[in-house]
Amino acid sequence: MVLREQEPGTSAPVVVGQALPYLDAVERVTGAVPYTLNLELPGMLHVKLLRSPHAHARIRRIDPSAADRLPGVAYVLTGPRLLELGIGTHYGVVVQDKPIVAIDKVRYVGDIVAAVAAVDEDTALEALDHIAVEYEELPAVFDAEAALQPGAPLLFETLPPQRQTFADIIVHRAEGTNLCNHFKLRKGDVAQGFAEADEIFEDVYTTPAAQHCPLEPHVVLAQWEHDGRLVVWSATQTPYSVRADLADLFRLPQAKVRVLTATLGGAYGAKSYIHLEPLAAAVALGARRPVKLVLSRQEEFLEVTKHPSKFYIRTGVKRDGTLTAREIRCYWSAGAYADISPRLIKNGGYASPGPYRIPHIKVDSYGVYTNLPPAGAFRGYGAPQAHWAGECQMDDIARALGIDPVELRLRNLLRDGDPFATSEQMHDVHFHELLREAAAKVGWGTPKPQPRPGKAIGRGVAVALKSTVTPSTSAAAVRVEADGSITVLSSTVEMGQGSKGILAQIAAEKFGVGYDRVRVVDPDTDITPYDQSTTSSRSTFSMGTAVQYAAEDACNQLRELAAGLLEAAPGDIEIGGGRAFVKGSPDKGLPLGQVLARTRRQQVLGHGTFVTEGGLDPETGQGVAAVHWHHAAGAAEVEVDLETGQVAVTRYHTEVYVGRAVNPRNARLQNEGSVILGLGQTFFEEMRYDDGQLVNGNLADYMIPSFEDLPRSVSSHFVEHPSGHGEPHGLGETAVPPVAAAIGNAIRDATGVRIRDLPLTPERVLRALEALGAVGSAGGDDHQARGEG
Amino acid sequence: MVLREQEPGTSAPVVVGQALPYLDAVERVTGAVPYTLNLELPGMLHVKLLRSPHAHARIRRIDPSAADRLPGVAYVLTGPRLLELGIGTHYGVVVQDKPIVAIDKVRYVGDIVAAVAAVDEDTALEALDHIAVEYEELPAVFDAEAALQPGAPLLFETLPPQRQTFADIIVHRAEGTNLCNHFKLRKGDVAQGFAEADEIFEDVYTTPAAQHCPLEPHVVLAQWEHDGRLVVWSATQTPYSVRADLADLFRLPQAKVRVLTATLGGAYGAKSYIHLEPLAAAVALGARRPVKLVLSRQEEFLEVTKHPSKFYIRTGVKRDGTLTAREIRCYWSAGAYADISPRLIKNGGYASPGPYRIPHIKVDSYGVYTNLPPAGAFRGYGAPQAHWAGECQMDDIARALGIDPVELRLRNLLRDGDPFATSEQMHDVHFHELLREAAAKVGWGTPKPQPRPGKAIGRGVAVALKSTVTPSTSAAAVRVEADGSITVLSSTVEMGQGSKGILAQIAAEKFGVGYDRVRVVDPDTDITPYDQSTTSSRSTFSMGTAVQYAAEDACNQLRELAAGLLEAAPGDIEIGGGRAFVKGSPDKGLPLGQVLARTRRQQVLGHGTFVTEGGLDPETGQGVAAVHWHHAAGAAEVEVDLETGQVAVTRYHTEVYVGRAVNPRNARLQNEGSVILGLGQTFFEEMRYDDGQLVNGNLADYMIPSFEDLPRSVSSHFVEHPSGHGEPHGLGETAVPPVAAAIGNAIRDATGVRIRDLPLTPERVLRALEALGAVGSAGGDDHQARGEG
Repeated sequence: MVLREQEPGTSAPVVVGQALPYLDAVERVTGAVPYTLNLELPGMLHVKLLRSPHAHARIRRIDPSAADRLPGVAYVLTGPRLLELGIGTHYGVVVQDKPIVAIDKVRYVGDIVAAVAAVDEDTALEALDHIAVEYEELPAVFDAEAALQPGAPLLFETLPPQRQTFADIIVHRAEGTNLCNHFKLRKGDVAQGFAEADEIFEDVYTTPAAQHCPLEPHVVLAQWEHDGRLVVWSATQTPYSVRADLADLFRLPQAKVRVLTATLGGAYGAKSYIHLEPLAAAVALGARRPVKLVLSRQEEFLEVTKHPSKFYIRTGVKRDGTLTAREIRCYWSAGAYADISPRLIKNGGYASPGPYRIPHIKVDSYGVYTNLPPAGAFRGYGAPQAHWAGECQMDDIARALGIDPVELRLRNLLRDGDPFATSEQMHDVHFHELLREAAAKVGWGTPKPQPRPGKAIGRGVAVALKSTVTPSTSAAAVRVEADGSITVLSSTVEMGQGSKGILAQIAAEKFGVGYDRVRVVDPDTDITPYDQSTTSSRSTFSMGTAVQYAAEDACNQLRELAAGLLEAAPGDIEIGGGRAFVKGSPDKGLPLGQVLARTRRQQVLGHGTFVTEGGLDPETGQGVAAVHWHHAAGAAEVEVDLETGQVAVTRYHTEVYVGRAVNPRNARLQNEGSVILGLGQTFFEEMRYDDGQLVNGNLADYMIPSFEDLPRSVSSHFVEHPSGHGEPHGLGETAVPPVAAAIGNAIRDATGVRIRDLPLTPERVLRALEALGAVGSAGGDDHQARGEG
Repeated sequence: MVLREQEPGTSAPVVVGQALPYLDAVERVTGAVPYTLNLELPGMLHVKLLRSPHAHARIRRIDPSAADRLPGVAYVLTGPRLLELGIGTHYGVVVQDKPIVAIDKVRYVGDIVAAVAAVDEDTALEALDHIAVEYEELPAVFDAEAALQPGAPLLFETLPPQRQTFADIIVHRAEGTNLCNHFKLRKGDVAQGFAEADEIFEDVYTTPAAQHCPLEPHVVLAQWEHDGRLVVWSATQTPYSVRADLADLFRLPQAKVRVLTATLGGAYGAKSYIHLEPLAAAVALGARRPVKLVLSRQEEFLEVTKHPSKFYIRTGVKRDGTLTAREIRCYWSAGAYADISPRLIKNGGYASPGPYRIPHIKVDSYGVYTNLPPAGAFRGYGAPQAHWAGECQMDDIARALGIDPVELRLRNLLRDGDPFATSEQMHDVHFHELLREAAAKVGWGTPKPQPRPGKAIGRGVAVALKSTVTPSTSAAAVRVEADGSITVLSSTVEMGQGSKGILAQIAAEKFGVGYDRVRVVDPDTDITPYDQSTTSSRSTFSMGTAVQYAAEDACNQLRELAAGLLEAAPGDIEIGGGRAFVKGSPDKGLPLGQVLARTRRQQVLGHGTFVTEGGLDPETGQGVAAVHWHHAAGAAEVEVDLETGQVAVTRYHTEVYVGRAVNPRNARLQNEGSVILGLGQTFFEEMRYDDGQLVNGNLADYMIPSFEDLPRSVSSHFVEHPSGHGEPHGLGETAVPPVAAAIGNAIRDATGVRIRDLPLTPERVLRALEALGAVGSAGGDDHQARGEG
C-alpha cells in the first residue's frame, strides 16, 4: 500500500513501442496481486467435491444423509438434489453434456459425484467420507480411435443438446457413437495429388495428455443477492462467456448475472469457458450462503487437459521437393465432456497441413469422447499436436530426398497472396524470413561443434502457423476523468501476459499521458464491455484495436468540446500531452480536465467495438479461418547422450512475426515463456493413466520444466512489419508449436533416430537408439551433411 | 434469495406513467436491501471517534500512547499524526476548512479530535478513554448574527482556501470575520418600491437547527488496494463529488479512486458531499488495513444539521394587495465548517422573495461560521426557512389589508413569462391552479366546522418555489445485453425515493421490455457514468433525461445493426416490444438479442449526457437560477386546544406541479413523505443547545413524527402538463416548504396569534395565546371571516 502517484501531468507520455515494465510490476514482485484465490466473502462456506473412483459406472444410489448431519455441514449437493433445484442441470460451452454433479452415471475417474459446503475445508473434506454411493461399473474406453469403433462403450446413449454459441463451430456428430465433432477439410483432389507425387511418405505421430499447471488453481466464489441476482468471482479467461452460460443455466436475464475476474495466476487455456461456476452457484443456491470452491493441485489434473492426439499423416512430394498432396486423419481424445473440443479439433485440423503451398489437401479431424478427464484449450490450441506430426515428417522427407530441411521448407512455404489449405488468401506472411533467421541463429550452414565422447550434436528447425479466433468481437470503453486521468474498461483478463500494460500503453499514447495516469479496470460484466475471450492470442490485436477505437471516440468527443473553448473547428483540435490544442499552435490549448470542467461534462466515455468476420464451410473447411495468422520458426541445437538417451538443448532460437510490438519487453517475455512451456511438452510432460486412473496427478510425479531444464542459450527475436505500422499480432502461443518438432528434428540430425511419440524422454530416445543400433556410436546417418547444408 | 425471474420476453412491457411498485419492493419489505451499513470487509478494523467537549478551544497537547498500547488497537489518528501522513489535511466541498481530525483547535462540541481503529467496536471505544488531550478554552459564538459583529470570537484566523468545484457558487468572504458566504440579490430599487407602497410590513422569523434522522447513519468503509488505489464504500448522495475530493486530498488521479454506494437507508441531504470519507481513508492508510466507520445516533446529531436561520423580512404593498418591494436580510448559522452552506444560503436567499411578481427586491443572505455542528443540505435546501418567513408574512398582510389570503396571493403569483426575482423569465408555472386546488381541498370558502368546547379551528395556505440545481450534469449508459435484457448504468443514488424504478421505467419504455428485464446498477465510480449529485430533486429530470438519451443512443445503434439484417434503412427500423422491426411491419423483425448475435456485437452500449446551463451574477443575483422551478401549494386545517396549546392538523392537502409523473405511485409517496417531514419541522423538531452543548441529541429527547402525529387526513395531488408530454419535475422536496407556513397561518386563522419561531410547540402556542389574552376564548380576531373568504 503506497502513495506513489505523481502529481497530475508530471509523468512522461507513453507511446506504443516502448519497453515498459508491467503496469502491475510492483504488485507482482511484492506478492500483492489480489488473486481470486485470496478473496473471502463474509459468511462464505467452503466447498469440497466427491469424485468418482470409476472410469465409467452407473450410480445406483447416493445417500448424503450422514454428511448432512455432520456439524458444520451446511449443504450437500447430489444428483437427485440437483434435479430439485429448479435450474438447468447440464452445461457446456458448445454441447450441454456436463451435469453440474453426476446424475445417472459417471464418465471418468474424477467425475464429480457430490459437493459439500461446510464452514471450513476440513469439515467439508470429512463430510465427503460420509456420502454413501453405490456404483454399477460399466466398460470404459480410453483411446480416441478405439472409441470410434463400432461396439465401443458409449459415454452418451443419446446426443446431448448442442448450443449455437459460436458461429464458427459446426458440430458433426452421430447418434450411437462417441463422436464429439468431425472437422472436414477438402481442397483439390488428393487422389490426383498423390498420383502426381514421386514419393509418398506416411507416418503416425502421437502426443499425450498434458496439464496446464497454472500456479493458481481453478477458483470460483458465488453469491446470490437478495434480489435474485447471481454474482460470481471466477478465475476465468472468459467472463462474458461464463455469464451467458450461467444466465442460461439458472434462467436469468444476462443483466442479472455478474461475473468478476481478477488477475489470474496463470491459465494457458485451462480457464477458458465455463468450468466450476455452475457448481459453485448451485451449491450457493442450495446452501443459501456464499461459497468458495478451490481445486487442489490433484484435482487440477482432473478438470481439463491438453488433448491426447494421434495423427495419420500422408504426404506426396516430387523429387525436387514440391509438395503435391497431404492427407491427414487425426484423432483427439476429448475425454468425458466436450468442453471446447469441437472447435479445437477444427483448428488443429486446418493447421495440420502446415504453412505450405499444397494443391491437394484432405483432413479428417475427429474429436472423440473417451473415459478420461475432459480435454480443452491448451496454449497452442491444437497447433502443437499438428505441427509435431507435420514438421517432423517434413524433415524426414527432406532427408529422404537429399534436400536440406531448411531448403525443402523454403521451396514450399507460403508467401503473401498464396492460398492456404482453407483457400483463403494469405497476407502479411513472413515465413521465409523467420525460418532463415532462426536457422542462422543456431549456426545452420556452419560446422557443428565437435561432440564430446559419447555425445552427438544435431540441429533442427520447424515452422508453425496458428489461427487467431475468427470471427471475433471485442469492445472497450475509455473514460477521461475530470482531472484528465484515463480509465480503460476492458474485459480482457490479465493472466500474466501483461495485457493491462499493453492496453494502458495504447490508451496513453492516444491522449499523450503518462503510464501512471491510466488505470485498466479488471473484467466485471457489470462494468467492462463485452469481450469474447482472453484466448487465442487475440487480446493485443482485438482488444487493443477496440481500446484504440474507444480512445479515438473519446478524443473526438474532447475535440468537439474543446472546439468551442478554443474557438477552432473540431477537426483542427489535436489531443496530445494530456491536452487539447489547436493544430500547429500547441500553446493554444487546455489540459483535458479543464476541457471537461469548462464544458461541465466532467467525464467523457469513448466506446469502441472491433468485429472480425470469417468462417469455414462445414463440409469442405474452405473459407476464412483467421483474420491473420500467427507464425513462427524455431531452431534447436541439441546434444544427445548416447549412453543415457538424455537430450540437452544447447541452443534454442525462436523467431516470430509480430506485425508491430506494442511493448518489446513483453513480446520477448511471451516468446521465452512459450519456448519454456514447449520444452516441458517436448521432454517430460505426459499424464499417464492406468485403466483410466491417473497415476501421476501431482507435481512430484508430473514434471514441468525448472530453471535447470532450460537450454544453455535461449534467444528470441520478433519481426515487425517493415512499414512500422503493422497490425499488432498476438504472441501468447506463437512460439510454442515449433519447439517439439525442432528438437525432434535436431535429435534425428544428431542420431538418425526418428521418434514419433511425445514426450522425448531419455528412455524413449535410448530405446530408439538401441533399435537403430546406434547406442554408443557417433550418431545419425547424415547429420553432419545436413547440419552444414 | 429467490429465482423468480421470468423467461425472457414473457413479461409485459413497461411505460412511463404506470404506477409500478418499487423495483426493489421485495427486498424492502423482506429487509433484504444490502445497505452499506451491513457491509463487512475481510480483515477490517472498526473506527471510533474522540470528540471535543468544548465549543471552542486550542489543543495544547494530545497523547495517544496509552491508547496505542491497548491490545486490539491497530492505529490512532491524531492531528500531529495526520500531518505526517503526507496527504492533504483539510477538506470541504466548497471551502477546504475542515481538518480530517482537529489539528490546532476544536470549533464545536463534538468536533473530531482523534480516531481509533481497533479489532472491534468495544476496544475502539475503550481506547478513546486512553487518549489524553489538553485544551485551552476559547470564547465561543453560537448565533449567526452575533458572530458577524465586530469583536466576535473568530473560528478561522485566516481564510481557509476555497475550491472552484461548483461554477454556480461565488463565495464572498472577508478576512477577520466569521462570514462564510454572502449572497446578494438586487432587482429594481427597493427604496423606490417602498416609497410606492401604501403599507410596509416588517417582521423577524426564525427556524432552529434540526436533524435529518435517516434510519441508516453515516457509514463509510475504506480500503487501500495494493496498487495504491483507494476504494471507498460510502453511504453518500454524491459518489462522484466524493471521488473528486478524495483524489485531491490523497493526491491521486481520479481514475485511482473508486467510490461505491449502495442503497441508502434515508439521507434527506445529510449525506450530500464529502463527510467522513477522508477520515476513514486516512485511518485505513495509517492502519494499513481496511476500516469501517459508523456514526452512532448521537454522533449523527453532530455531523450535519439543518441551518438555524433568522429572517428580517420587509414588504411593501399597495392597498389593493399589489406587492411593490421586498427586502430580506437573513442569517444562516453554518456551524463550524462550511460544508455546502455557501450554496444553500444563496438558494435560500433567492427563494425568499417567494413566487410573486415584485418589481423591487433586495436580499442579503449571510452564511456565518458559529461554534455549532456544521449545517448543510436539508430537504428543501433553504426554501423551508425562506417560505416560513415569507408565507406567514403574506397572510398577515392579507389580514391587515382585509383581503382573503388566497386572493392576495392570486393577485401577485407569478405566471408564465413573468420575471422572477433573478429576472429570469418563468415558464411552465402553475401556481394559480395549485393554490386554488389546495385551498379548495381544505374547504376554503366553505364554513368551518363548529369547534368543540375549548378548541378553535382554522385554515391556512402557503405556496413555495424551489430551484433545481443549475447548471447541472448527469450522464448515463444503457447496455443491451446479448439476450436483450437491459442494464442501466447510473450514478443516481437510490435512497428510498425509488429512483431505480423510475430509471428502469424510462429505459424499459424505450425498448418495450418488461420491468424485470431491466437492472439498474448501483453507483460505482468505476462503472457508472458521472452524475453531479442525488440532491435537489434533480434525478428524475436530469438523470431520467440522460437515461433517455443513452437508451436512444443504444436504439440508434440497434437500428443500424438491424437495418442490414432486415434489409431496411436504419430510419425505417422501430424498436419496441424487445424487438427491432420494420416500421409498419411488426412481423418483419427480430428480438434484440438476435440482432446482437447475428451482427456479432453481443452488446451495445448507449451513452447520454444531459447538461443544463445557468448561473447568477455574483453582485446582483440576476441570471438563471434554475432550469425549471419546483412549485407547490399546501393547505391545512387545524384544531387548536386553547387550554393546552396543542395543535391537531385535521386536514392537510398538498398540491404539486410535476410536469409529467413517471410513476404516479412514487409521486404520491414523495408528496406524503414531504408533508410528514414538514410536520416534524413544524411541530417538534429543534436541536437545543446549552452553551454549545447539544442537550437533546437522541431520539428520546429529539422528537420526530410518529404515525400518531399524522393529520387525520393527508392528501396530495399533482398537476401534470396539459400536453401530456411535460418535462418531468422532481418531487423529493417540493411539498416540504409550504407545510410550516400553512399550519402557522391556520393557527393564526383559528386563534389570531402569529408565531414567528419554529417549532410550534404547545408551550409556544400557549404562551402566544396568553399574550393575546385569548386562552380559553374562541380564538382569533377575524378567523371566521377569513376562513370563509
